[in-house]
Amino acid sequence: MKALVQGVLQGERRALARLLTQIENRREGSDDALAALFPHTGRAHLIGVTGAPGAGKSTLVTALAKALRGRGQSVAILCVDPTSPFTGGAILGDRIRMADLAGDSGVFIRSMATRGSLGGVASATRDAARVLDAAGFDIVLIETVGAGQSEVEIARIAQTVIVVEAPGMGDDVQAIKAGILEIADLLVVNKADNPGVDNTVRALKMMLELGHPVNGQMRHHGHLMTVDFPDAPNEDFWMPRLVKTTAINGQGIDDLLLAVDAHQAWLRDRDRFPQFESAQIRNELLERVRDSLFARWLAEHNAEEIEAVSRRVQARTIAPHDAVANLVVAPKAQSV
Amino acid sequence: MKALVQGVLQGERRALARLLTQIENRREGSDDALAALFPHTGRAHLIGVTGAPGAGKSTLVTALAKALRGRGQSVAILCVDPTSPFTGGAILGDRIRMADLAGDSGVFIRSMATRGSLGGVASATRDAARVLDAAGFDIVLIETVGAGQSEVEIARIAQTVIVVEAPGMGDDVQAIKAGILEIADLLVVNKADNPGVDNTVRALKMMLELGHPVNGQMRHHGHLMTVDFPDAPNEDFWMPRLVKTTAINGQGIDDLLLAVDAHQAWLRDRDRFPQFESAQIRNELLERVRDSLFARWLAEHNAEEIEAVSRRVQARTIAPHDAVANLVVAPKAQSV
Repeated sequence: MKALVQGVLQGERRALARLLTQIENRREGSDDALAALFPHTGRAHLIGVTGAPGAGKSTLVTALAKALRGRGQSVAILCVDPTSPFTGGAILGDRIRMADLAGDSGVFIRSMATRGSLGGVASATRDAARVLDAAGFDIVLIETVGAGQSEVEIARIAQTVIVVEAPGMGDDVQAIKAGILEIADLLVVNKADNPGVDNTVRALKMMLELGHPVNGQMRHHGHLMTVDFPDAPNEDFWMPRLVKTTAINGQGIDDLLLAVDAHQAWLRDRDRFPQFESAQIRNELLERVRDSLFARWLAEHNAEEIEAVSRRVQARTIAPHDAVANLVVAPKAQSV
Repeated sequence: MKALVQGVLQGERRALARLLTQIENRREGSDDALAALFPHTGRAHLIGVTGAPGAGKSTLVTALAKALRGRGQSVAILCVDPTSPFTGGAILGDRIRMADLAGDSGVFIRSMATRGSLGGVASATRDAARVLDAAGFDIVLIETVGAGQSEVEIARIAQTVIVVEAPGMGDDVQAIKAGILEIADLLVVNKADNPGVDNTVRALKMMLELGHPVNGQMRHHGHLMTVDFPDAPNEDFWMPRLVKTTAINGQGIDDLLLAVDAHQAWLRDRDRFPQFESAQIRNELLERVRDSLFARWLAEHNAEEIEAVSRRVQARTIAPHDAVANLVVAPKAQSV
């Protein structure tokens, strides 16, 4: 592991790929490796790209990566699919589509099959993003399917969140949009050459305007709010920008890049990066505390004890809430 | 609360609606109310209905509810939308579509806006389903958008899981299907009057056959596997059934009902209900233990302490993993 960590810090691609695998599988020494890399993190700009299936996320990510490379920035792409238990399938498809980035040593592409991953999707993604950050990439693009919790998790990790939509999605999809809009810093309407693009843009603009706190219709839960800035005055909200793209032929990608830069400059001008990171670290510590307490409890209790209580609950002689009060007794000072 | 509990047990609709609201908002006395209702649970058949947006889930649920009512069973419908922070929107749409069930005292419809709900979507849904079970409904239909984790959570709660698909969905959707197929007991291809239905049916059949353990291509992670039956022989797997429906005009609903009955009979014949419930209760107890340990830790630690450690992590003087080891010390026997 030590050699791999050294390799990663020296920019060796093979060491990077191998260390990511070790950490993904929670091999022994993972925590030490992450700790050794940790002082080298905090420099990359993390950009999350999410959206409903079929919106063309991976084509967009590929185009964005090319554009970033064009101005000399190194790019790591992390494809996270929390809905798929397979390492093949969609992820394989992404890889094929991204083949035209291959051969460029300034790009690194990594797919993660995170369904059922130990410790959850969020922490696995965070760990991998940290390794890529420590490896010295300027930009880490984190691509994920906008499904349920995953887009909220990505918002916790990435400094800039891009939500991708496409024209011609049904009524039901509007509902998903409502949820996903909350975390968007930039909103991309991709496949802008498709019919219905104007309707989609109009609908999204209306939702964005309703969502903006200045208009007061409802509280804006935008990206920065999710990490808690209770003192931020209303006029100091980032108003999510909308960009039209046709990623497949590169149209609109320059505009998207400008919007990314604008968001980054906005964050920097207000010194928001340290605030963002501080909230992020606090959340991470609390999550780890919770996991660690539970792990210790599990080590202290045997399966028979848990089974016995389960059986009483199943017989309806005790309610779950009360059963837990018995299982989690006050600190067992007497047993020390 | 006591009066509400009594009302629920006597089948009063207003008491039921009010108690659900109290419990959803975690009002004082919620745990006691749930404990009082708990001995009356375990009788309803819980059916989960999930699938990608646009597949026509709520139309199908409405049609299924009508069919169940037609043979005299009482039905509660729980609409869970973990992607929407709004109580309006899609949920309002569902209510309108379900208007033709209104006025029938044997049906009760409830929408939950669970995003950001305390204790998570899964436990909020479980609590609500228990109240409906205790209220004496024969069938509880739990409808949710098949997005990320929510379909896995529904599988933990419902005894029968129906996954709804529609023809003509894109490549990306295939990937979601792969994940969602794992939990399907019954697979519905709705909108069967749309073009492309035969292709969809063929593709799904192929996936089901590949997924079946007898064919050995990959391990079947079907519904029953998720609750762990390590000893179940291969030939004793429920092979998910595929049903074509056009819910909007009622076509195929009778077939779906037969398939639901077949699955229920299959479970009953093998005495699987108690096994399912036992695994479910064990999981619930462990989740509650974890939450309870964390709540106690939070009560014992003040914000300044957590802030101080966060700052050291942000300064990169300590890695998150090591910081947590400091925060979660061994049982503090000395402080008693």
